[in-house]
Amino acid sequence: MKIVKFGGSSLANGDQILKVIKIVKSDPARRVIVVSAPGKRFSGDRKITDLLLDLAQAVLNREDPQDIYDSIFQRYTQIAAFFQLDPEILTELKTHLFQITQASYPSDVFCQAALSAQGEYMSARLITAVFNQVGLKARMLTPMAIGMTVSKEARNAQILPASYAKIAQTKIADDEIIIFPGFFGITKDGLINTFSRGGSDITGAILARGLDADLYENFTDVDSIYAVNPKLVDNPAPIHEMTFSEMRELSYAGFAVFHDEAILPAIEGNIPINVKNTNHPEAAGTMIVPRARLTHKNKITGIASANHFQAIYIHRYLINRQVGFTASILKILADLNISYEHMPSGIDDITIIFDKKQLTGGRKEKLTQRIQEEIQPDALEWKNDYAIIMVVGEGLINRVGAMSDVVDPMRDAGVSLTMVNQGASEISIMLGVKPEDEAKAVRAIYDAHFENGHAKKED
Amino acid sequence: MKIVKFGGSSLANGDQILKVIKIVKSDPARRVIVVSAPGKRFSGDRKITDLLLDLAQAVLNREDPQDIYDSIFQRYTQIAAFFQLDPEILTELKTHLFQITQASYPSDVFCQAALSAQGEYMSARLITAVFNQVGLKARMLTPMAIGMTVSKEARNAQILPASYAKIAQTKIADDEIIIFPGFFGITKDGLINTFSRGGSDITGAILARGLDADLYENFTDVDSIYAVNPKLVDNPAPIHEMTFSEMRELSYAGFAVFHDEAILPAIEGNIPINVKNTNHPEAAGTMIVPRARLTHKNKITGIASANHFQAIYIHRYLINRQVGFTASILKILADLNISYEHMPSGIDDITIIFDKKQLTGGRKEKLTQRIQEEIQPDALEWKNDYAIIMVVGEGLINRVGAMSDVVDPMRDAGVSLTMVNQGASEISIMLGVKPEDEAKAVRAIYDAHFENGHAKKED
Repeated sequence: MKIVKFGGSSLANGDQILKVIKIVKSDPARRVIVVSAPGKRFSGDRKITDLLLDLAQAVLNREDPQDIYDSIFQRYTQIAAFFQLDPEILTELKTHLFQITQASYPSDVFCQAALSAQGEYMSARLITAVFNQVGLKARMLTPMAIGMTVSKEARNAQILPASYAKIAQTKIADDEIIIFPGFFGITKDGLINTFSRGGSDITGAILARGLDADLYENFTDVDSIYAVNPKLVDNPAPIHEMTFSEMRELSYAGFAVFHDEAILPAIEGNIPINVKNTNHPEAAGTMIVPRARLTHKNKITGIASANHFQAIYIHRYLINRQVGFTASILKILADLNISYEHMPSGIDDITIIFDKKQLTGGRKEKLTQRIQEEIQPDALEWKNDYAIIMVVGEGLINRVGAMSDVVDPMRDAGVSLTMVNQGASEISIMLGVKPEDEAKAVRAIYDAHFENGHAKKED
Repeated sequence: MKIVKFGGSSLANGDQILKVIKIVKSDPARRVIVVSAPGKRFSGDRKITDLLLDLAQAVLNREDPQDIYDSIFQRYTQIAAFFQLDPEILTELKTHLFQITQASYPSDVFCQAALSAQGEYMSARLITAVFNQVGLKARMLTPMAIGMTVSKEARNAQILPASYAKIAQTKIADDEIIIFPGFFGITKDGLINTFSRGGSDITGAILARGLDADLYENFTDVDSIYAVNPKLVDNPAPIHEMTFSEMRELSYAGFAVFHDEAILPAIEGNIPINVKNTNHPEAAGTMIVPRARLTHKNKITGIASANHFQAIYIHRYLINRQVGFTASILKILADLNISYEHMPSGIDDITIIFDKKQLTGGRKEKLTQRIQEEIQPDALEWKNDYAIIMVVGEGLINRVGAMSDVVDPMRDAGVSLTMVNQGASEISIMLGVKPEDEAKAVRAIYDAHFENGHAKKED
């Protein structure tokens, strides 16, 4: 059995949904369909989920929400009309959404969670009707119905491990297709709570694990995951196959194709993921598999990069003699609610790398002040722009020359390194460069190992 | 004015002391002489400091110490006879040492501190007499006399910052030479307390700073500090000049020429250090200078290595989402009183590198157990043998190709890397290799940048 998840662009309008129907019909193993809320139809269009968050704001502010309602239902009405559905379904959905706005919530953020989840809920209702209209026997199930219970962290729900045993008991008839709304679960108190944004990927992975699927197909709008950012390199090499660990390392540094947290249930359930393109379903896409199932180890599987970092450099003689030094730094960070990305330490020096988002609202200034006062460094310097490149490949493990393969092309391109970190993970090399060198460095590493959209022969 | 420190081998016997006299006479700026206890005269000989620690043990155990006394005074008697000193001085020293054994101490470790310091004290007494005997006007000063006050951490004394102002007031006549015992200071309570072993280097550096010397000369038994361990490479290149920071980074990974903590007062006082050879004082030795005074930046100044490390590798998916994860690890380490060397962290992985000494007495097993219980990693693996290579050079900073210069020779020698850490300190690259690859890797990096005892021209 395959769990199949379709993203927002795959469900944005009638034409896209026709492609979904064709994909589901073409393979009888596609039995559980996880749907997102309708996404953008064109550049500048608004996603239903964003409109629903606007609606939540209007409700909380006691403003008139009619215009927002109209924008939301215009989308669903178009889809219903495209498939000539009974208009009664729209009336039902409107009543349903109105009831959600009228419910009482323990806090504003749970009101936002409940409303933002309705894009997926209404999608599932509509797609179920569409499938039945076109002759696919479809039944909608919900998190409530199958016991998909989540934690109470509002809008950052985590699946509760006990859910899997309940999900496993779900009965699915041989001749039916299940339609399931992505993005949300139900707390033990019965509240709707959403995963982090893009969380329909997580729903699909949870169902794949809970139902012990053979494969989790994740349909999106690209033919595959690429070995390098297509914005930096023309005709980039597709990744045909990679391990869960490789995906984790790459997604960290900016590969946004697949939701970070969605990997975990797939890993736990040992279920391969296939990223495919709704608009081009013939393409094999990218298989993400456990290490034991990997058929070919790439020297380098992918190169990711991001430049939204800042770093602080602290120098103090005999820093490593100072008992509890790192603990003091961690305490300051915890007090200021700042999380850090990476903290390379040396004999007399430590560098701490942050996502810039962590340093807004005066927190950078407070952090600087507390370090000055409590650590009393001999030198303290901010590096305000910091890019990180992540080179990932199962074939890096223990390989002689792996580091040279990465740093020699950068040298030849005239790029100097501000940081190198290898050894925590065996399958990745993390490099720091100046932001102005980021694209040049990524291209140099890529060109040394790939050509014409393929890994070079000797790789 | 120059502060001049002579190590144990320079004061081991009469012939060596004649060299010291010649060195002091040859330069009138050599005004303050810091002396160690007599060291080994030959391989297998015992150092006076070790004999004094035996004496302390005998005193604490209420055993008969006569044999140990005899061994100690045999050495001083030989020196006194060599210079035909008045035998009365030996009687004085014996009485002095006996009084030290009879004093009461707040703890056994302060008894050990007080006795182990007497090697330097008696050396200073004897050298003062020798100098006066050979026509050098010498006067002995002590930590007590000049206010060299230290902390109460027994046998690991730290200088108290207030000492420097007192030391600065020391009056030295134009025509006299000061002889000063190394290795110990006086606590505020008047107790003798020693620096860590080899601490005469520290005494010299403290006096150099306190007296605002122009130069701190550190006489030992090698012509210079070498760019690489002479046990690994024949005819290694001498280091003519390096910065304080380079010395710190190199000494960390096994360069034992100069005491680690002795750098700090020199840095604070901005006082250059000259490491020279008592047996070959014509050689220029190695100058250790502040960065601003460096006359030539080496691409690579030195390569150090050590193999007394173990590492634990911990893998857990979404480790970086777990709030307080690093803090939990630090707490376990603090509870078990284990200090770590280095902790490279990745997305789902962390490696912690320890000095093997930190993991004895069941602490490794306890650490493993607590990490298993409290961190619940998906994978945990010990790497029981781990070598670290440190490549150091001011010329590494921001230089394109710096990493290639280090890792390409290792690739060519067939060495794979288990860890690379660059970026905390800008002047060093830390590399992990298997212990069996340590010598091969060091030689490969050295041979790529040095030949015939000199840096290659292009470097």
